[in-house]
Order: sequence, then structure tokens, then C-alpha cells
Amino acid sequence: MKAAIIGAGVIGGGWAARFLMHGWDVALFDPSAGARARSLRVVDAARRRLPQLYAEPLPEEGRLSQAESLAEAVVAADWVQESVPEDLSQKRRLYAGIPPDLPDHTPIASSTSGFKPSVLAQGSAHARRLLVCHPFNPVYLLPLVEVVPSEHTLRHIAERAVEVLESLGMHPLRVRREIDAHIADRLLEAVWREALWLVRDGVATTSEIDAAIRYGFGPRWAQMGLFENYRIAGGDAGMRHFLAQFGPALKWPWSHLTDVPDLTDDLIEEIARQSDEQAAGASVSALEERRDANLVAIFRALKSRNQGVGELLNRMDARLGGQAVAN
Amino acid sequence: MKAAIIGAGVIGGGWAARFLMHGWDVALFDPSAGARARSLRVVDAARRRLPQLYAEPLPEEGRLSQAESLAEAVVAADWVQESVPEDLSQKRRLYAGIPPDLPDHTPIASSTSGFKPSVLAQGSAHARRLLVCHPFNPVYLLPLVEVVPSEHTLRHIAERAVEVLESLGMHPLRVRREIDAHIADRLLEAVWREALWLVRDGVATTSEIDAAIRYGFGPRWAQMGLFENYRIAGGDAGMRHFLAQFGPALKWPWSHLTDVPDLTDDLIEEIARQSDEQAAGASVSALEERRDANLVAIFRALKSRNQGVGELLNRMDARLGGQAVAN
Repeated sequence: MKAAIIGAGVIGGGWAARFLMHGWDVALFDPSAGARARSLRVVDAARRRLPQLYAEPLPEEGRLSQAESLAEAVVAADWVQESVPEDLSQKRRLYAGIPPDLPDHTPIASSTSGFKPSVLAQGSAHARRLLVCHPFNPVYLLPLVEVVPSEHTLRHIAERAVEVLESLGMHPLRVRREIDAHIADRLLEAVWREALWLVRDGVATTSEIDAAIRYGFGPRWAQMGLFENYRIAGGDAGMRHFLAQFGPALKWPWSHLTDVPDLTDDLIEEIARQSDEQAAGASVSALEERRDANLVAIFRALKSRNQGVGELLNRMDARLGGQAVAN
Repeated sequence: MKAAIIGAGVIGGGWAARFLMHGWDVALFDPSAGARARSLRVVDAARRRLPQLYAEPLPEEGRLSQAESLAEAVVAADWVQESVPEDLSQKRRLYAGIPPDLPDHTPIASSTSGFKPSVLAQGSAHARRLLVCHPFNPVYLLPLVEVVPSEHTLRHIAERAVEVLESLGMHPLRVRREIDAHIADRLLEAVWREALWLVRDGVATTSEIDAAIRYGFGPRWAQMGLFENYRIAGGDAGMRHFLAQFGPALKWPWSHLTDVPDLTDDLIEEIARQSDEQAAGASVSALEERRDANLVAIFRALKSRNQGVGELLNRMDARLGGQAVAN
């Protein structure tokens, strides 16, 4: 099997690693300077980390090649993954450059975190095989992929996408309705805007906001989500009680509702300065190492409990070991 | 040392457990039906779980008593913690009912998730010892406490509050500026509103939203926060690059900005129904057990890496073992 990975940033590199380590050949295309080195660095991190999640060995790694052109990358590909910057016309030009003779079963999947698939597909000859498969950084460790077909996407393409993503150890979440930013990034955007306000207004620094997350609701969300945690908070009376209690608070002025903070040069400078201070000299690769080792430790802990991501990893172990997969 | 815990819901019970298990006597006051049973259930959960986080034994447990009145509960108390419902006049009446002769060093701390301390303290004879100490559920496992003094709060009271909270194994986060909902709940409110819209508009179910969190950004946030993760996402170019990339997206219509969803009876019913389906028959105590066991597993994993909550637990172990605490 061959995957064509178009765009080799942090996300494209992560996709390349996911496919390679599950036995796919990968052809990578990115004409920008440093793309090859960047993607190899991500693949190396994945080689170190992903096997730590499994009791069973992963399949023999596929072959990684750097294509000289888009056409060369996609030839005879069983999967095309586009991870170029969030620029609609750039994405559309790219789809237009893909030759029409792909195999029938091949999805063209976009990593876009914002655009709806029907918007991406406007005017494209590939509309029937185009869909959104939006992953999360680091792609080689976090299993979530939001899968969003448009009304034009063929049913068998969407079904095959889900199947392939599961075989890569991922958790494809079929999104019921097209919507800008899908699901997760709508939640992230909401938090991000509020966090920018808190920094801008001098209420909290980047490091204090991170502490509020890491020592507070973050660990809750690593294993149960928003609603399940609130169900528990409602006590024996459950969700109805919780909603009745919490309901009125929605009307209180607890966040900057109507307004998007201006990302002025001053604000960018202030956030960057606080972030530098918070990193205390650690390089981005050191932080990345730390993040990945933490994620592996958390996932292994959840695996021993067969919960959340851990349940998925156990199912994948069964699959890798060739056993019948329960559930 | 004696702590007076006023209000014995999930939060008050959690506070009682934190104090008891660190050797404090606790006098609990809550005139409502079932308060005693509720708080004992929380204390029992804490007795099972909290010791699992430490290599060193906790101090001998203090004595738990149920007071017949507010005055009886607070007499000679070294800490007063108020955790009654989010009703301003109820909270103010309660403070007014606290006799004036508390020890000089005794803070009156409110668990409010929304009100500013200066608003709570308006017209109170106790204004100088009043401050917000807002914890997170489950209080006996999650270490975050937002500590918010008002301009009236005496400096030595706020300092003592931080000291006591640290001795309970918590992470007091001094909030620089009074603001409705402090820090963490502003972020949570933003996510909550957006999640309600997603359910209301039929984009996602409660269980799909929870999956988007658990398999996606939740595990990131259990160990690093928002800004540190985004710093990494920026790659070698760091935070400035990330902000420059992400900046324009703030202007896109990626969430319901200007509007608060109406929590109609229909929406409450729909969420409660989806939440019931998601729980698949598990009782709230079963979910609570699962959450706590997951948190313990995650915290132990982070402890072995001395990261985030794990670093705090290692410091606490050193303290419990009577060693000099590094850092």
C-alpha cells in the first residue's frame, strides 16, 4: 500500500510516520526548503515512541521516498493526504493538480482544521473522493481523526477512510454535519480566545493559564470528556441536576462573549515573551521529547486500566497480534 | 488544627477529606438532608485513593465531627471553608453569621467558582480574612486551587492560605486580578457554551464531543497546558511563528461568538438523554470510581516522570518523609 503525503510540516510528517510504521510505503512531496529534514525528524520521534505503546511488534516499516512532483507522489497511491497551510486557493490548486487516474478506492483526505469538505471540493473533479481527515498533533501518538465527508463524497470512500485510519491505530470520529472547524477545534478556539483575553488583560500569564489546565481540568479530560465529568459532578441526581444548577451561570458575564481579541503586535510580543520565560531555555525539541514521553506514560497507564486511549491500544495489540478483536 | 467545612456537597466533602487526611480535625456543618451521608461517601473515596499517590504514609487522620450550627462549627477554627451553592445572598448571610472572635490567623475561604472576593466581602465584618480558594472536583485528587484575595484581604491571611493549601498537597494558583470566574472556569465556560451549541445544532452528541476531547487534546492538557503545546506546534520558530500562523483564524467564524445558547427544556432533555445513553447503565458512583482510578493511574505515571502533577507529588513525598524539599 502506498500513501502520498503532500505537505511535510509537523502534521504531514506525523502522517508519514503513522503510515510508514504500519507498513505502508510513503511518497512525500513538499517543495519548500527543509521539508525533507523536518519530516525525517518527526518520523524519528515516531520510531522511538509509537512502539512503546504496544506489547506486539508493529509491521515491518514501509519505504519512505521524497517525490519530485505532486504527480509523482500520487501515482498509484492508495491514500492521498494533503497537509498544506490553511489557504483555500492553495489547497484547491493542489487538488486540481492531481491527475484523474487515481485508483477507485483512493481517498484524497485534507488535514484542514477549519474548512468544510464541500468548500474544499468546490469545482474539483475529485469531489467524490475528497473528504476531511483532521488529525491532532503529535499525529503519531494522538489517535483522534475527525472524518468529515461532504455531500459529494462517495460512501465507499468515507467507509474506506475509516477502515484505513483504524488500521493505523487511530480513532476516526465521523462528524455528522459539516461545520467550520469541525468539533475539536471549535472547542479549542473558544478556549484560545478566552486565554488571549486573560493574557491581554493582565489577569494571568501563559504559565499560570497552563498551570490552571495541567493541575485542574486537564487530567480529567485525558480520560473522560466534558459531559461525562459533569455527569459525575451532578452527583446521584445526574445530568439533569447538573444542568439545572449550571444553567443560570450561562447568563453571567463569565467570558468575553461578543468579542475577538485583537492579536496586535504588542500582544504577540507579550505572549512570546511569557512563553520564552515559561520554557526556561528548553528547546522546542526538548519540549517535544518531554511531551511525547509524558503522553506515552499516560497512555500506558490508561492501557493498564483499559480506559479511553488505553482501550484503543489494547484493541490494536490484539489486531497486531493477529487475534480476533473483541468488540 | 481544626477546619470548619460549611456546606457538605461534593466540594465540601472533598475539602473535608483533604484536611482530615492531612491530620486536621474537621467540623462539618450542613443542615440539608443527606449531607452527612454524602460527605462520608466522599471521605471514603479519598481514603481509598489519596494514599495511592504517595510513597510515604499520610499523617494520622484527624477527627471528623458534624456540627449542629455554624457557630459550633467555626469555634476556634484555624480554617473556614465555605462551599454552599452559588447564591450571593446565601453566602453573605453565612459570613454574617460567623462570630467575630475567630483566631487572627484564620482565613474564611469561599469555594465559589464565579464570584469575586470583593463582591462576597461587601459589607462583611470579616472582609479582611475573606478570600476565594476555588478547588476542582475531585478535590481530594486534583491539586489546583485558585487563590484570589480582594483588596481588603490581609496579606498575612493570603500568605497563610497558600501555605496551608501547599501542606495539603495542593497547587495554590495566586490569581493576580479579581475577575468573574477567576481563570479556569472562564476557559471551561467557553468550552461549555460551544459544546452546548454543537449538541443543540445536531453537529455532535455528548459522547462524540467527549471522544474528541479524550482521544485528542485532553491527553495533551493533562501534562502541558495550552500555550506550551502551541509553542511546540510552532516548531523551531516557536511561539511567534505559531501566533503569526494562527492569528488570522481568530477572525474566522469558528464558533458562536456573540451568543449564549438558550438552555431550553428540550435541550436539557436531549443532553440528559444522550448522557444516559453514553453512561450505558453505569451509576454515578461507578463512573466516579472509574474517574478516580484513571486519575490515580495518570498521576502515578506523571510521578515516575516527575512532570506536572507528578512533580508536586514527589515534592509532597519528600515533605511527608520529613526530608528537605528540593526546589
